[in-house]
Amino acid sequence: MQGAVLYGPRDVRFEEREVRKIVKPTDAVIRVSAACVCGSDLWPYRGIQAIAQPTPMGHEYCGIVEEIGSAVTSVKPGQFVIGSFFASDNTCPTCRMGYQSSCQHRELVGGAQAPFLRVPLADGTLVSTPGVPPDHLVPSLLTTSDVLGTGWFAANAANVKPGSTVAVVGDGAVGLLGVLSARQMGADRIIAMSRHESRQKLAREFGATDIVTERGEKGVALIKELTRGVGADSVLECVGTQESMMQAIQSARAGGFVSYVGVPHGVGLNGEQLFFSHIHLHGGPAPVRRYLPDLIDLVWNRKINPGEVFDLVLPLDQVDEGYRAMDERRAIKTLLYPNGGN
Amino acid sequence: MQGAVLYGPRDVRFEEREVRKIVKPTDAVIRVSAACVCGSDLWPYRGIQAIAQPTPMGHEYCGIVEEIGSAVTSVKPGQFVIGSFFASDNTCPTCRMGYQSSCQHRELVGGAQAPFLRVPLADGTLVSTPGVPPDHLVPSLLTTSDVLGTGWFAANAANVKPGSTVAVVGDGAVGLLGVLSARQMGADRIIAMSRHESRQKLAREFGATDIVTERGEKGVALIKELTRGVGADSVLECVGTQESMMQAIQSARAGGFVSYVGVPHGVGLNGEQLFFSHIHLHGGPAPVRRYLPDLIDLVWNRKINPGEVFDLVLPLDQVDEGYRAMDERRAIKTLLYPNGGN
Repeated sequence: MQGAVLYGPRDVRFEEREVRKIVKPTDAVIRVSAACVCGSDLWPYRGIQAIAQPTPMGHEYCGIVEEIGSAVTSVKPGQFVIGSFFASDNTCPTCRMGYQSSCQHRELVGGAQAPFLRVPLADGTLVSTPGVPPDHLVPSLLTTSDVLGTGWFAANAANVKPGSTVAVVGDGAVGLLGVLSARQMGADRIIAMSRHESRQKLAREFGATDIVTERGEKGVALIKELTRGVGADSVLECVGTQESMMQAIQSARAGGFVSYVGVPHGVGLNGEQLFFSHIHLHGGPAPVRRYLPDLIDLVWNRKINPGEVFDLVLPLDQVDEGYRAMDERRAIKTLLYPNGGN
Repeated sequence: MQGAVLYGPRDVRFEEREVRKIVKPTDAVIRVSAACVCGSDLWPYRGIQAIAQPTPMGHEYCGIVEEIGSAVTSVKPGQFVIGSFFASDNTCPTCRMGYQSSCQHRELVGGAQAPFLRVPLADGTLVSTPGVPPDHLVPSLLTTSDVLGTGWFAANAANVKPGSTVAVVGDGAVGLLGVLSARQMGADRIIAMSRHESRQKLAREFGATDIVTERGEKGVALIKELTRGVGADSVLECVGTQESMMQAIQSARAGGFVSYVGVPHGVGLNGEQLFFSHIHLHGGPAPVRRYLPDLIDLVWNRKINPGEVFDLVLPLDQVDEGYRAMDERRAIKTLLYPNGGN
């Protein structure tokens, strides 16, 4: 089979790879209906995060179960399933407390930008949909695998409640779906920080009530202005840089909540500054598995349409253009079809 | 009047100071029944935190209202009152959300180690007791002014609930009262990290179920051992150093809660490390005012006896020995009587 492999900065190749097979009895192999490029894929693509060797890419996936290991009982061939980027047993104490992405037996799922994918710990990891979905539902279902689950965690970790005033730092796909999530959770006011017109438009569609185009101190000053000088109840940090983190912390009110959901790159926090900000801080790799059943329900019942974040759709053999378009911010998020659709 | 003034490292003097008077119509002046030395007073006493000029010391206080400004309506002369180290109006949006120590009009209260004290924003700051307390209740009431309120905030900010497994880093008075607070909040298991026998004893009296004497990585390993390899639900960081902060973060389970309530000195947090720890982090100057009515109730009704943290009692003219004993860890906390008792 042919899949996407990263060789170095800005060098993604579509090339022959070994077909995925069952390795452990707890594995499943799925035929990938749709995959996509994650904002976090851009860190190694841009050379900011080093890779040791040519690396099969992709960790967002949904598709049809092709084969299961002898120990797998909760999914069966022919079912349409979705899983997270961290395989988890969903039974250890950490999973049971809702932090499946820190499962004591977690394994990274990799190489999803390919026609077939091996998923470890299939029973704990995969969630099946009520049936095989129509093609038009696949993009939205795919988002539950990571980008929506991560935006949802961002809103949840920032304690968004009915009536909350929310600010979202970052207008990438995670930030935009953070807006959608905050809206679903009943936020009263959602301030999206974005300087790109197409993203502002989508933010408004997803529920943003205000747009702030300034960054840094000016951005913070505007958030304060919009919140009676107090700051936002909840701030979702969806970028992962020092600047975005400080912008998020300073935009929150005393006693407010800041979440951060992208791996921080080169971020350092000063203890004393954090102390006097008086904020709650929570983040980490999104425990997508916790939210999957509910998010699948919302999509299945047409309550939300998160698939709108995909503004570039390509067959997998054009994966290189998919990365390039996101790198150059021509695309918000690239959807890839490895098998010509469902 | 004579009070405590810090001149420089290890140089606290009992000397003549100006009598406190009403300056603004919102002020009250109180005759201090009891004051004490705070762990945070030791930072400047030890020269770790520089002072620009000779500084009147003390910010924990209770006493009898002597005089009120023309705008004060909620307390009157003769009442026994307690306030926090931050005066707050208790009406601004930040106060109303329970973060009075970040009040938009907050003022530091200073110079409480003296016979009289000026308290700004008296209506918002001072809480009166049901009557003038008997002398033996004064030490416990005094703790509600800061050290108990701070320990209580530590437990609250670390999300201690009935059934929680709690670890407390730091066996100073705040840490010990963090133990007491966690017990009051229904924690199932309370692990106190302490290497001093007298403090371990008090920790057990206050409700600790386990003692860990190791620090750093060994201490963390023991916490993990005591919690099925998972980590504690709630960790109270009551020291404020890099070592104690890392010990706290590493002792918490994924998805667990870490609070920090002492001003961090030289603490820096690595964003990526914090991200993968998956913890909730909350802290800052304790909003003592939020808790004062309930804590006064608990003391008044003999439900708790936090005054036991005072293991050295001195008349104010021996304040220098009070600091020295705490600096040398001969005393947990020093109680000072400026007016020969109540």
